[in-house]
Amino acid sequence: MKWMMGLLFALVANLCLAQAAGEFRPASSNVWDAQYPRIDAAGRVQVRVKAPEASKVRVNFWNGPKLDMQKQPDGFWTVITEPLVPGFHYYTLIIDGAEVSDPGSHAYFGGTRHASAVEIPEPGSTYYSIQDVPHGQVREVWYHSKVTGSWRHALVYLPPGYDAQTDKRYPVLYLQHGGGEDETGWIRQGRANFILDNLIAAREAEPMIVVMAYGYARRAGVSPPDMSGVAFGSPEMLKAMHEMAETFEDDVTQALIPFIDKTFRTRADRDNRAMAGLSMGGMQTFHITLNHLDLFSHIGGFSGAAGLLAPGNRKFDAKKDYNGVFADAAAFAKRVHVLWLGVGTAEAERFRTGIRGLHQSLNEAGIEHVYVESQDTDHEWQTWRRALKDFAPRLFKHGKGRS
Amino acid sequence: MKWMMGLLFALVANLCLAQAAGEFRPASSNVWDAQYPRIDAAGRVQVRVKAPEASKVRVNFWNGPKLDMQKQPDGFWTVITEPLVPGFHYYTLIIDGAEVSDPGSHAYFGGTRHASAVEIPEPGSTYYSIQDVPHGQVREVWYHSKVTGSWRHALVYLPPGYDAQTDKRYPVLYLQHGGGEDETGWIRQGRANFILDNLIAAREAEPMIVVMAYGYARRAGVSPPDMSGVAFGSPEMLKAMHEMAETFEDDVTQALIPFIDKTFRTRADRDNRAMAGLSMGGMQTFHITLNHLDLFSHIGGFSGAAGLLAPGNRKFDAKKDYNGVFADAAAFAKRVHVLWLGVGTAEAERFRTGIRGLHQSLNEAGIEHVYVESQDTDHEWQTWRRALKDFAPRLFKHGKGRS
Repeated sequence: MKWMMGLLFALVANLCLAQAAGEFRPASSNVWDAQYPRIDAAGRVQVRVKAPEASKVRVNFWNGPKLDMQKQPDGFWTVITEPLVPGFHYYTLIIDGAEVSDPGSHAYFGGTRHASAVEIPEPGSTYYSIQDVPHGQVREVWYHSKVTGSWRHALVYLPPGYDAQTDKRYPVLYLQHGGGEDETGWIRQGRANFILDNLIAAREAEPMIVVMAYGYARRAGVSPPDMSGVAFGSPEMLKAMHEMAETFEDDVTQALIPFIDKTFRTRADRDNRAMAGLSMGGMQTFHITLNHLDLFSHIGGFSGAAGLLAPGNRKFDAKKDYNGVFADAAAFAKRVHVLWLGVGTAEAERFRTGIRGLHQSLNEAGIEHVYVESQDTDHEWQTWRRALKDFAPRLFKHGKGRS
Repeated sequence: MKWMMGLLFALVANLCLAQAAGEFRPASSNVWDAQYPRIDAAGRVQVRVKAPEASKVRVNFWNGPKLDMQKQPDGFWTVITEPLVPGFHYYTLIIDGAEVSDPGSHAYFGGTRHASAVEIPEPGSTYYSIQDVPHGQVREVWYHSKVTGSWRHALVYLPPGYDAQTDKRYPVLYLQHGGGEDETGWIRQGRANFILDNLIAAREAEPMIVVMAYGYARRAGVSPPDMSGVAFGSPEMLKAMHEMAETFEDDVTQALIPFIDKTFRTRADRDNRAMAGLSMGGMQTFHITLNHLDLFSHIGGFSGAAGLLAPGNRKFDAKKDYNGVFADAAAFAKRVHVLWLGVGTAEAERFRTGIRGLHQSLNEAGIEHVYVESQDTDHEWQTWRRALKDFAPRLFKHGKGRS
């Protein structure tokens, strides 16, 4: 009854507020009947939070404005932003120095917390919306990893028709989240399932399985390293990162892939296995796939790829890096059917420089690859939705008149 | 890179803190490497949040203590609770009047928001933990409802072996969340999938499909009612609640069940269809099943059932209520294979009175049913995990030597 009362009170409160609303309407990313945050057609966001005894409240859009909110007589704090670009905007509220999420927003795991977000629609874009087409299913699976000594959770997209066509086997894309996010990001924030549904319905992409794993890993029996006094970017820090990357590599290749191939009707060979990831996930993808070209033949780095972890973004060395897999361009082109790089033109200088520099280095080395810039989008999910929309149709067409 | 920096800083901060920890350890319900909240073996919870400029911070355990936190010199606020009983404890932080969630906890949808929680282990209880047994999968599905005129999201548990045994069909349990919660509650909070995995592995429960739907609904084309000035518990409010219940009833019977029976290998008859729910979901269950005994033959009310919505918890009338389905006890027993009621002995008076009163009324009317009290548990998930553990093994044994 307590829940119901809370729900009813929330309903009443929200419905009353709705009458006073002007052109602003609740964001699609809100919880049931929450009237705030609200957005208007220009992409302005009206944020509102109850904090009657606070002395300072700010809203912090992670890739956007950081604004002081104004206290109203009723104890609510409000602010309206300038127009934000279409896409998915993480934000937090800072209430007297406490950085917290907004109760009106659904929770999206990012920045190692359940953060808030507003979804600003992109006019005319339906590719990441749910449509009246056959839908795949997203499955939660748990696999035991001897590498980490723990049960691990992953999400798996199964394309439409998977249940009915029991004699059909499917290629697999391993698709990784960014740093601070988790295995839910590509579905909750990225809408990867709807992107795939729509591409498959339009016959633009092959029906495929998409596996979204948890990108953090610590080796079984190993205690967290003592990082006290370790400076950010120091050799000790990079060593810790490297250890996590190598543990995740072993988890993917020794635990996850065997589990997926045992559990689902996959085509379990390198020609039918791809990996891509965004930001940190892009770096993990390059690390894992280029160390295991026996397992992968399609590689995607979305706003993150090789070299970004190296101090000072040192120039990529095609002859030596990754044990020389790029040294022979013709041999590489034979083995790797798709190598994809992309970045948003509104991303921070270091991302654009890093990815463009890699693109240029690959060109100089004669390495066949796809390079796509997303116009006017930042280091956020609109860039990565577009990346997936461009990347997925290129997959698993080897031997089918690859374009 | 921003995400990665945040992650790394968090790692460093957390690892440093870990060294100062005594007997307290991070709750299993925390996000990756978050060191707070922490619990000790007695069930005490140590809560900690950064709010350097706040003047008052409280922690609000929804079924437990509400405590002032103490400000430390480093800008963090801390408190240690008395021992909490084993189970799942929702809580929020109240920072200068703003009720928000704790960044260190995973988010669990309850109270119409993504709330925080700590999981206090129940010594010796493994029935809701992941075990080394075959695991079912939890699938996310989207179905279009003509009743609500919208796409609706549901979670569906498929038992171990579902994919492999393609000639086998399964009975279905529809399992509803409580008021203020959503379709994710039975998995995230309740661990229904692990409870079923363990029961099925022990051959205590029949392999079954479990469907967890979103329990709120508004009819297509209908605007939210004008609730301004409507008092809580008033006839207008009850009317609005009733309309939502009837809309959800139509959604379940006209949209959800047909979708599930089309999508999965169900046994699509009343003998093989059950419904249960907790609190508000129990009331919905009674409403829907007793109006549709052509569709359902097993009914479960977990801390919520008939009559609780009626003003003043008026006494259940077996002769008249629910169109008289209880009037003929022998006929009812023939149609309804399991009628299950339960409540926690530590729940608030109104819950215990309501459920016990219904139990007594059913006894007086000679209605065969199961009544189970959960010792020392409150209106929270430990009660409902136990309820599911008791209820599920009783299902779908009709004609198999029903006990």
